[in-house]
Amino acid sequence: MIQLLVPDLPTIEELLPWLKWIDNNKWYSNFGPLVQKFESELTELLDSNLTTVNSGTSALELSLLALELPIGSKVLLPAFTFPATVTAIKYIGLQPVFTDIDPNSWLLTPNIARQILDKITYDVVIPVTTFGHPQPVDEWDQFNKDTNVTVLIDAASSFGNQPIGKRCITTFSLHATKAFGIGEGGLIVANCADFIQQVRALSNFGFENGVIVRYGSNAKLSEYHAAVGLAQLKRWEQIVQKREVIWNIYQKYLAKTSLQSMPENHIPAILSVKINGNIPILTNKQIKTRRWYYPPLYKHPAFTDIVKISPQENDYLPITENLSLLGLPFHTSLTEEEISYICNNL
Amino acid sequence: MIQLLVPDLPTIEELLPWLKWIDNNKWYSNFGPLVQKFESELTELLDSNLTTVNSGTSALELSLLALELPIGSKVLLPAFTFPATVTAIKYIGLQPVFTDIDPNSWLLTPNIARQILDKITYDVVIPVTTFGHPQPVDEWDQFNKDTNVTVLIDAASSFGNQPIGKRCITTFSLHATKAFGIGEGGLIVANCADFIQQVRALSNFGFENGVIVRYGSNAKLSEYHAAVGLAQLKRWEQIVQKREVIWNIYQKYLAKTSLQSMPENHIPAILSVKINGNIPILTNKQIKTRRWYYPPLYKHPAFTDIVKISPQENDYLPITENLSLLGLPFHTSLTEEEISYICNNL
Repeated sequence: MIQLLVPDLPTIEELLPWLKWIDNNKWYSNFGPLVQKFESELTELLDSNLTTVNSGTSALELSLLALELPIGSKVLLPAFTFPATVTAIKYIGLQPVFTDIDPNSWLLTPNIARQILDKITYDVVIPVTTFGHPQPVDEWDQFNKDTNVTVLIDAASSFGNQPIGKRCITTFSLHATKAFGIGEGGLIVANCADFIQQVRALSNFGFENGVIVRYGSNAKLSEYHAAVGLAQLKRWEQIVQKREVIWNIYQKYLAKTSLQSMPENHIPAILSVKINGNIPILTNKQIKTRRWYYPPLYKHPAFTDIVKISPQENDYLPITENLSLLGLPFHTSLTEEEISYICNNL
Repeated sequence: MIQLLVPDLPTIEELLPWLKWIDNNKWYSNFGPLVQKFESELTELLDSNLTTVNSGTSALELSLLALELPIGSKVLLPAFTFPATVTAIKYIGLQPVFTDIDPNSWLLTPNIARQILDKITYDVVIPVTTFGHPQPVDEWDQFNKDTNVTVLIDAASSFGNQPIGKRCITTFSLHATKAFGIGEGGLIVANCADFIQQVRALSNFGFENGVIVRYGSNAKLSEYHAAVGLAQLKRWEQIVQKREVIWNIYQKYLAKTSLQSMPENHIPAILSVKINGNIPILTNKQIKTRRWYYPPLYKHPAFTDIVKISPQENDYLPITENLSLLGLPFHTSLTEEEISYICNNL
């Protein structure tokens, strides 16, 4: 069976030097030396202020919480995304509003966000970097400047693809299935040091100088996950290269099919192809696939009551509704033979 | 310097067999084989249904969320506890109500909960197992039977001390500083299998059969932390014995002082002594101490607006207000010489 996603994480041998640090320090969480070192290396890599947390979901929750919005404030997001984008909004008591995506990039674009602003007001927009596709950060910076709406880019799958804006907040997931995986983990990245400091405090209940000034939760990254992160940073360049090779092989074989693959020139986090007509069932060919983000979020029982606003017409999101995608295996352990076999069966 | 808390966690050598599992499985989160094995061993140890999560705080949050209470429902808790008890309530949109503690056990007791019920109605009570002191679970089962108020025991520090009730929900923290520490982690334990299944779904966004039926968050324990947990289970009996020895030595030397130490016969998670008069400063004696749970929660800036209801008189919690405690070093690497030195300086 050709697997859909195979995590590419450090081996024991690669972890050992960092685990020895832990044994020596006897420090296991609460912003220990490995978390500090991991954050400092990430800061250098991304050239921005940031803080680690224990998941991409808590990165979204705490970023939203740090904005100090009144309960029930509206947050615009695409209906075409992983459920965590909307659970995070609901979990801390804000009101999600679904909108549609661009037919070509499959993204909630600044253009769509502006069209929706003509119809309703909202306080935050969460553009998602669907399947790893980066969001145009300069345009979003400009959008924020023009509208004062907070832009929180949910770049869960896009570590390595998504640049950091001057005015946007960006969150990443470091879940095992991501290109940069550490098991479970997340990052909040923003130009504003005060904001990052606030999120960091909220990830530790909200403690500031021994008392809780604003309440948060416990979302601290443990030293164990920081150890995995530090080992993974040493492998990152190599992972990127391997994913590039896999992607180029896919490009070669997908070109022989009639399928539209990922819209632009970047290394996808997830490889989805657009299907016209019936979704092929490849399980009997020993190929694992997944219909990512299907059904659309507004069809999940928990989200049927969430308002939908379309740039075209209210209450109907035609692109999301009619997009038919198939997620293909995409990971660093694929061989050219396997990729050729997959594409031949499409 | 004699440290206050020194985590007693597995060494690399003890972790290695489980890390090899991870390398072989290439499974890092999402209820992998190590989490399943860890949960199955814990189930045997505690003889109850349970699910793991990534912290004691998320154990509280998700247990409260699983109760499906209307936003703003009242939750009674002691003002004398770690802030996570109240942040969890606020984080998911419920309304905390502070009450006082028993002057002898320093616990919110069933008796106090009944007295408050004569004054106001509330939907949930969270008795805390202060410093590891177990809550009387049969009495709480009876309280729930009599009143229909949900009892959620915050046994964050009391793994090994707190028995599991028939009608109560119990949460534990597995944070590094706890007697059973794994770095970061938590447990929800309850007799009701359906409730545990619900919390487990909520810890994975709320997924049930591929769709979100009720929204949750991401609070899954990673395979790395399950590995630490499995290694720790093999050391657990030995940790308990070591803590018992330390406690007995403390008893011997504390008896020579006039100080009231922990109220009852159990191995404390945190060793606090009651101080009459000025709190001694021991830093210049090279002894680290901490005034646990000071100031009372209602004096933290984030919680000053929370209603306080006392069994005696409204709006004033005399026991919490006047309790003066000092937390002494308590961990398995203390020597008799150090304990004698600490007690001589009190």
